[in-house]
Amino acid sequence: MLTPQMLQYAEKFDDRGDIRWLPYLMYFHPADHTSDVVNTDRIGFRLSEHQGRRISAGGEVPDGPVRLVAGSSTVFGIGATSDAHTLASRLSAKHAPSTPWLNFGGRSFNSTQELMLFSLYRHLVPRIDEIVLFTGFNSLGLARMPRHLQGDHGAFFNGHEYADQVRAARLAKFRENGMSRRAASKAVGEPETKHIPPTLDEQIDRATDLTIRNVDNWRLLAAGLGAKLTFVLQPLAPWVRERPAPEESRLFAELDAIADFGRAYGDICTVDAGRRYARALSAGCERIGVPFLDMNPVLTEASDPGQWLFVDRIHFTDEGHDIVAGLLADRLGLN
Amino acid sequence: MLTPQMLQYAEKFDDRGDIRWLPYLMYFHPADHTSDVVNTDRIGFRLSEHQGRRISAGGEVPDGPVRLVAGSSTVFGIGATSDAHTLASRLSAKHAPSTPWLNFGGRSFNSTQELMLFSLYRHLVPRIDEIVLFTGFNSLGLARMPRHLQGDHGAFFNGHEYADQVRAARLAKFRENGMSRRAASKAVGEPETKHIPPTLDEQIDRATDLTIRNVDNWRLLAAGLGAKLTFVLQPLAPWVRERPAPEESRLFAELDAIADFGRAYGDICTVDAGRRYARALSAGCERIGVPFLDMNPVLTEASDPGQWLFVDRIHFTDEGHDIVAGLLADRLGLN
Repeated sequence: MLTPQMLQYAEKFDDRGDIRWLPYLMYFHPADHTSDVVNTDRIGFRLSEHQGRRISAGGEVPDGPVRLVAGSSTVFGIGATSDAHTLASRLSAKHAPSTPWLNFGGRSFNSTQELMLFSLYRHLVPRIDEIVLFTGFNSLGLARMPRHLQGDHGAFFNGHEYADQVRAARLAKFRENGMSRRAASKAVGEPETKHIPPTLDEQIDRATDLTIRNVDNWRLLAAGLGAKLTFVLQPLAPWVRERPAPEESRLFAELDAIADFGRAYGDICTVDAGRRYARALSAGCERIGVPFLDMNPVLTEASDPGQWLFVDRIHFTDEGHDIVAGLLADRLGLN
Repeated sequence: MLTPQMLQYAEKFDDRGDIRWLPYLMYFHPADHTSDVVNTDRIGFRLSEHQGRRISAGGEVPDGPVRLVAGSSTVFGIGATSDAHTLASRLSAKHAPSTPWLNFGGRSFNSTQELMLFSLYRHLVPRIDEIVLFTGFNSLGLARMPRHLQGDHGAFFNGHEYADQVRAARLAKFRENGMSRRAASKAVGEPETKHIPPTLDEQIDRATDLTIRNVDNWRLLAAGLGAKLTFVLQPLAPWVRERPAPEESRLFAELDAIADFGRAYGDICTVDAGRRYARALSAGCERIGVPFLDMNPVLTEASDPGQWLFVDRIHFTDEGHDIVAGLLADRLGLN
């Protein structure tokens, strides 16, 4: 087994398992989770390590200034063999150790959820000097989902389950108010099923619009807090190199036998698509004055063609985390 | 019937009716609703009127700068006999007409939902010069609710229904994953029932902490946008005067026969409780540098003892809306 640590993520950090539904955020990680691989605080933030201390927004918050790496599951650190191997920990321990880094990753989050997580919990962190928003893939992937799941702020993972529950709640309310079963069903309507997937351009436009809209709120909040903000487009294996490393080939084949990533995400998965998305995000960030970095070509350049970086197309090995943390420090001038 | 307009709010703008559940916000008004009394845009914002135009964030947005009055159902304008009698419309039409006012009220919203509504939709309004956050009652009322409904960001209305649906969703997922009915029920756990109501001091502390936490995000967003922000504690009938006007006495008695407000909200409903809450909010606003106004004593002073201001303890008559809009303009120096 190439990635035994993944079993530790499966039960509680996988959409097929127990989802911790929450108001506003929709869902977040289990709180107070402990294992050799992954540990969360009383809120659900993953712990990062800084000079032997285990820190997080809902746990031990260091005195003095801190920095945040925010995003979705890659920032959370799915794939890391322990909390020490996440981006926040590698930055804290080695590549940019002058000020501690907190993990503000939310697994399966879109850009709206990432913003909410920050808005709702930033008061726990008295002084924030720097925010690295390391994200971008989920919003593009979700932009493929059917129109009726997009709403005004983009689709989110598990959106089908949410829609089913809303239907059930409305049905129950109508019945409680004395409507017949037939009338209540009619009032609630049939779940929509028809879906014409958007073109790649439409998908990129939709994802970019939504992302930049949210990044603009990050910008205002960060500026008011005196924190530097950078948007980094996270690496996706097929945006980094056309040919995966040997271990990656084996893993991707195994994973595709369970759920075909290529079929699910279609034409996103080419280097060209990645660069087009990066150009759109870069233009959006420039318009609102937020520094932007596409980590994909940076990682291509910095790694050997056969180097094992990914445990699946979007999550890193320990070595991948370490290399990317080093590149972040280098390119963003973090110390 | 003293307030026939209330029938027009009952079916679609009442928690006993059809709730429009939504991601992130939890719920919002029906979209594209039309009637003689209340009209909403494609998102659910209520229209306000400015120089004969009907404006809203999701509908016609005026060119040039606008101002927002944000809050919950009182800002939405439950009680007004038409859109023209809401605070936003009275400010636009008469008391502060120099720049149009948009209605950013969300019925049954707490302070977190008010902040989210702004974060999620402010991009529709290119230039915002001023924000009046006219709110405060719901957060205090909700602070009475049981601990398990408070979560990390305070309780919200319809929270019981939400909790029931989450239980149902988790049960279904466990069953789908092959768990027996008994094991799944056990895993989900019993709904909590025990509840010791907090003291008034605890309630005020809880509501103030949460509110100021959210107002601090409003502050950062407003500052970045160059918009002036003021927090106004909204009037509650028993905070304005101990003895209601004659029409109010009749209405409150009728309403209490359906749902006893005094019993539901307990010791909140005295002038003294209102002043204590105002002092706590005022101190919180001062700490973060946001101007604060308690509208309650202002309204006491400005109105005649027998003047009919309220359709229920928290929503205004047309005359109430007009007087309060005038007092806002006067006290905040709006023109």
